[in-house]
Amino acid sequence: MNNQVTIEEQGLRDGIQNLDVILSVEQKLHFIDSLVDAGIKRIQIASFVHPKLVPQMADAEAVCKRVSKKDGIIYSGLVLNLKGVERAITAGLDHISCSISASDTHSQKNARKKLAEAKAAFLEMVKTCQENNIRARGGIQCAFGCRYEGVIAKEHVLDMVKFHLDTGIEELALADSTGMANPMQIEELMNSVKELAGDIPLILHLHNTESKGYANVYAALRSGVRIFDTAFGGLGGCPFITSATGNIATEDTIHMLHQMGYETGIDINKVAKLSLEMQGLLGHELQSKMYSLLQKDDIAII
Amino acid sequence: MNNQVTIEEQGLRDGIQNLDVILSVEQKLHFIDSLVDAGIKRIQIASFVHPKLVPQMADAEAVCKRVSKKDGIIYSGLVLNLKGVERAITAGLDHISCSISASDTHSQKNARKKLAEAKAAFLEMVKTCQENNIRARGGIQCAFGCRYEGVIAKEHVLDMVKFHLDTGIEELALADSTGMANPMQIEELMNSVKELAGDIPLILHLHNTESKGYANVYAALRSGVRIFDTAFGGLGGCPFITSATGNIATEDTIHMLHQMGYETGIDINKVAKLSLEMQGLLGHELQSKMYSLLQKDDIAII
Repeated sequence: MNNQVTIEEQGLRDGIQNLDVILSVEQKLHFIDSLVDAGIKRIQIASFVHPKLVPQMADAEAVCKRVSKKDGIIYSGLVLNLKGVERAITAGLDHISCSISASDTHSQKNARKKLAEAKAAFLEMVKTCQENNIRARGGIQCAFGCRYEGVIAKEHVLDMVKFHLDTGIEELALADSTGMANPMQIEELMNSVKELAGDIPLILHLHNTESKGYANVYAALRSGVRIFDTAFGGLGGCPFITSATGNIATEDTIHMLHQMGYETGIDINKVAKLSLEMQGLLGHELQSKMYSLLQKDDIAII
Repeated sequence: MNNQVTIEEQGLRDGIQNLDVILSVEQKLHFIDSLVDAGIKRIQIASFVHPKLVPQMADAEAVCKRVSKKDGIIYSGLVLNLKGVERAITAGLDHISCSISASDTHSQKNARKKLAEAKAAFLEMVKTCQENNIRARGGIQCAFGCRYEGVIAKEHVLDMVKFHLDTGIEELALADSTGMANPMQIEELMNSVKELAGDIPLILHLHNTESKGYANVYAALRSGVRIFDTAFGGLGGCPFITSATGNIATEDTIHMLHQMGYETGIDINKVAKLSLEMQGLLGHELQSKMYSLLQKDDIAII
């Protein structure tokens, strides 16, 4: 079994979109550069959404244009509509996450579109990426449960997966945006998705809202998933999901992975120092456990 | 596969021993009665340790004598030495957890005995339980790692397991006192322990110190473990382990279990209300995630 795991760092997108403190472009660039220096190979650096709805992302173009891109690193942006795709392309990104919700209600709140409209728009978004030689990652939000609708039927999610695959997306992410997934469900659903997806790389986006985030990582590893979205410090939460809290933390995820013999190429101490720095900026403790443990020099960490 | 899971509630022992606020006997009795009312079938209500070292447990005798025991419920106490066993018997308990550390250094700090001395004492402790017709649960602390010694070798833990089984203990608990275990390690070790233990019920005691607590529950379920120690609110931590934090939370554990089709017989809303009450007593948020989510009436919980 392949023991290489890739982390897509989302702290500068999903991680900060809900914060009260608005980070400057310079602060964002500092964290992006430092995370890449720590060994992060994929990083989402902005979302192209309406600046009035998500003020933290109003400087998306500036961040994308000013970031000093390193070879071999994927710098990505999240988009929810065609205008977002066009903005991301103009901003010079060559990897775009085109995302759509499995929940009709969440889709209306997050993207202001009913599911049928969102699917029609998604086709245009992926087509535009393809015409511009942009690598498109497809994403299904609320794939494991919705705070408005409750259970999202497995069959419905698999239909969404087929819809995504038919568009020719090059990677597919399933998101537990609400943290409602349980590990048994993750294992079952991801096994089914894997059969449909063939060689298309699968990505899992998890939140620790209900304490199950890392159990879900373990379950997904068992299903063969080898790419995870995480946020340093365990930052995060969707502004349009009530009670959405932190992403699984980069440092806690890779600590568990490294203990189990998986390789990520990421220096956990460097990530932990960035979380500590973010704690200082925000003035309160973060959700991650490992970043503070790693600062203590009187305890063994294995 | 058996889908019945038993929770041993440890909030009134491991959960509070590290708190600044000293609970009164009346407050402890209120929480014990309310937890049993919520469906808890096993509950650790005191430890018989030196009152100067753990002031929170100075009223152990009073709690044990005044608790109104319900039929079919196990009320248990933790002991670390022969004097503790004698105190627990005098206090009227008929279920005693005799615990010993797998780590020599932790044993010296927690029980003031080197491992060899602790093992000799353990034989006396179990013998005394047996002579008094007390059900003895054996426990191995720091079975998955130690903050002083780092890695605890699997072979050493299995030797400790054999030592325990040879004494005739009726149940065996392995404790990840430090929260250092990872799910792969849990699965491997518990599979080996299960082979040795035969029909002796196995119990796992987990902490969420490194975010892996619930992943470890999932792994242990896969190894056939069906009894878990938890603490409502995710309270807890050992006074003699640097950086030890909360036990896995009763409500978060049973939420995950119920979602996966396991039955515990516990009413999660009642437990969540007790955690909320404890939050009020302590004046700060607890580690558990579900107790606050369950207070919101505008979100779906599945």
